[in-house]
Amino acid sequence: MTPVTSGSGKSLTDLFVEAATQAIEDAGVDRIDSMYVGNMMSGFLQNQEHLGALMVTAMGEEGIPACKVEGACASGGVAANAGVKAVLSGLEGVVLVGAVEKMSGYTTPQVTSGLMMAEDKARVGATGVTFVGLNAMIAREYMQRYNIPHEALAEFPVMCHTNALDNPKAQFHKKISVEDVVHSPLVADPLRLYDCSGIGDGAAALVLTSLEKARKLTDSPVLISASAVATDRISLYQRPDITTFEASRKAATAAYERAGLGTDDVDVLEVHDAFSVLGIMALEDLGFAPKGAGSRMVKDGECARDGRIPTNTFGGLKARGHPVGASGVYQIAEVALQLSNEAGKCQVPNADVGLAQSVGGIGTTVTVHILKRGD
Amino acid sequence: MTPVTSGSGKSLTDLFVEAATQAIEDAGVDRIDSMYVGNMMSGFLQNQEHLGALMVTAMGEEGIPACKVEGACASGGVAANAGVKAVLSGLEGVVLVGAVEKMSGYTTPQVTSGLMMAEDKARVGATGVTFVGLNAMIAREYMQRYNIPHEALAEFPVMCHTNALDNPKAQFHKKISVEDVVHSPLVADPLRLYDCSGIGDGAAALVLTSLEKARKLTDSPVLISASAVATDRISLYQRPDITTFEASRKAATAAYERAGLGTDDVDVLEVHDAFSVLGIMALEDLGFAPKGAGSRMVKDGECARDGRIPTNTFGGLKARGHPVGASGVYQIAEVALQLSNEAGKCQVPNADVGLAQSVGGIGTTVTVHILKRGD
Repeated sequence: MTPVTSGSGKSLTDLFVEAATQAIEDAGVDRIDSMYVGNMMSGFLQNQEHLGALMVTAMGEEGIPACKVEGACASGGVAANAGVKAVLSGLEGVVLVGAVEKMSGYTTPQVTSGLMMAEDKARVGATGVTFVGLNAMIAREYMQRYNIPHEALAEFPVMCHTNALDNPKAQFHKKISVEDVVHSPLVADPLRLYDCSGIGDGAAALVLTSLEKARKLTDSPVLISASAVATDRISLYQRPDITTFEASRKAATAAYERAGLGTDDVDVLEVHDAFSVLGIMALEDLGFAPKGAGSRMVKDGECARDGRIPTNTFGGLKARGHPVGASGVYQIAEVALQLSNEAGKCQVPNADVGLAQSVGGIGTTVTVHILKRGD
Repeated sequence: MTPVTSGSGKSLTDLFVEAATQAIEDAGVDRIDSMYVGNMMSGFLQNQEHLGALMVTAMGEEGIPACKVEGACASGGVAANAGVKAVLSGLEGVVLVGAVEKMSGYTTPQVTSGLMMAEDKARVGATGVTFVGLNAMIAREYMQRYNIPHEALAEFPVMCHTNALDNPKAQFHKKISVEDVVHSPLVADPLRLYDCSGIGDGAAALVLTSLEKARKLTDSPVLISASAVATDRISLYQRPDITTFEASRKAATAAYERAGLGTDDVDVLEVHDAFSVLGIMALEDLGFAPKGAGSRMVKDGECARDGRIPTNTFGGLKARGHPVGASGVYQIAEVALQLSNEAGKCQVPNADVGLAQSVGGIGTTVTVHILKRGD
């Protein structure tokens, strides 16, 4: 993973190569057979496509198959899913999954417009609503339906900022309080600045191969027990209930079933907290809390690194940062580091199973990866 | 396949749904497990991403996994490759691969700029060279090195326009002569208007499943014997020889090996003739003619529908049309129609094996699919 930063001046290629090179070195493989590049906004912001071949060229991995995989903010998650299928297909033995996004260096209206590409731009974007505006509607509805004060939602970013203090690659190293969150500048009522992930640049990468080969390469391989993707109708107005993400439930159910595991087995969790309310809803939709009870879990410390289900242990989207199309791979990499005891100061004890959830659009494309120690 | 048209006024979604619905009906499947959407330019031209979920929503295929797959003008080809791996992985039983591009309704500078996203935009695009300009350099070099007059290159578009006369879905129904080509308006010296594919909208779709299941659904299943992707360095200036596409050779070699077949086995061929010279080079790089001898093959009628290797039997990119990210799927669909004897007036006799080659960028990402009658 590269550090997540705003204003680094690095190009998409610089960022990708930095992460991919580290991943290949760390994996100890002498070649890769193919590359999947997760990214959401390069066509719009950088006016650059063909990232597969662009990155193959930059990496000097001459001739190998490569493509870009896109699923809005879950692009990293769907790229990982593509990588998993490539290995399972038997066609590609060692697969690099990298994901990159560069969001800084553009005006806020540009980035805001870019993020709306995750919704139906022609129908919903045309109304003028923004991506954060749509998430604010979710927050409002959630708070009203479950009688949750803003202070309760704020527990999530507070926890993330605490965790990020120990992550040298996090975008924000700043301890914040619930009071700070609820008094920070209003972005889209009720969401305030500290409810929202920031604008950042970053890249992360994974090397995937068969467990058999991985065991030869390392003493601490990590097994992907399940990789699931589910979708929902793309627009919020098409959903009967906006306080739950059906795609999150579907992807989680499929992943638990494939892995033969349940919530009780999960020791470490990375969820998609692009906005405070999404972190809380993820705890519920993934089965860790009943609807309306997610924020209580966080307040009670159950999601802290020393709690029952350590969550967003490196700072999550809020504090580690959310270079949108890359975040899904950051999360999987972070879970993998936890399971292989390489999480440094962010390490949680005795983690055997981890889950990473990534969300594209307004809960529209959700990926769930369940990882397990493979030694 | 939708007809390829310019100025239909149809949206990306309209186009995709039209093709995907036809493919599902034609296949006779009662459900699909996932969707792969090939597309190159939606982020830039339509300011719309998240095409996976957008199309799942439009199709009413609630909840299924979906993503966009991009490889410049070979996006359809890489989407098909992703679909093949999905089926081989065992995770998805019935897979829809659709590809769509909408290029009309924009200014020529907009589309020209969009096409340069296939090259390194920051380094090469910044020089002001256009995509057709780069292909013109290839044509010039090819003509000089092999002493090929423009008239010889022109044989390719002439053949394509002849074939398209019988394809009701082709963009151009106009017989042209070699004289017409070499006297058509200059676009980028030496390439003239009739050397170049046009700007068009279109979508095409395939349903992929196991051969076992396909045999239950139809009496004329088509087997994908090989699906190969290869890449080259993204920029033309990085290549030692621009008159051959190394990625084309690599993808073809891999595909022939996987299929256990060679050029002699191929009965019908679809190649990526975005520019006349590329059609000729494809014949050579895929092994059907020695370097410099491709145009002679066309002139001698070997590539005609009643020739030795019927090529671009529905009109190819030049005359059927080239909605860039969709063309790779059009080609595979056309080969499949030939092998199942459903090619209508474009039908060639006794085709058992077909090959489709799609090119992204300046020969940068090349996909080769070899299809075989599966009955």
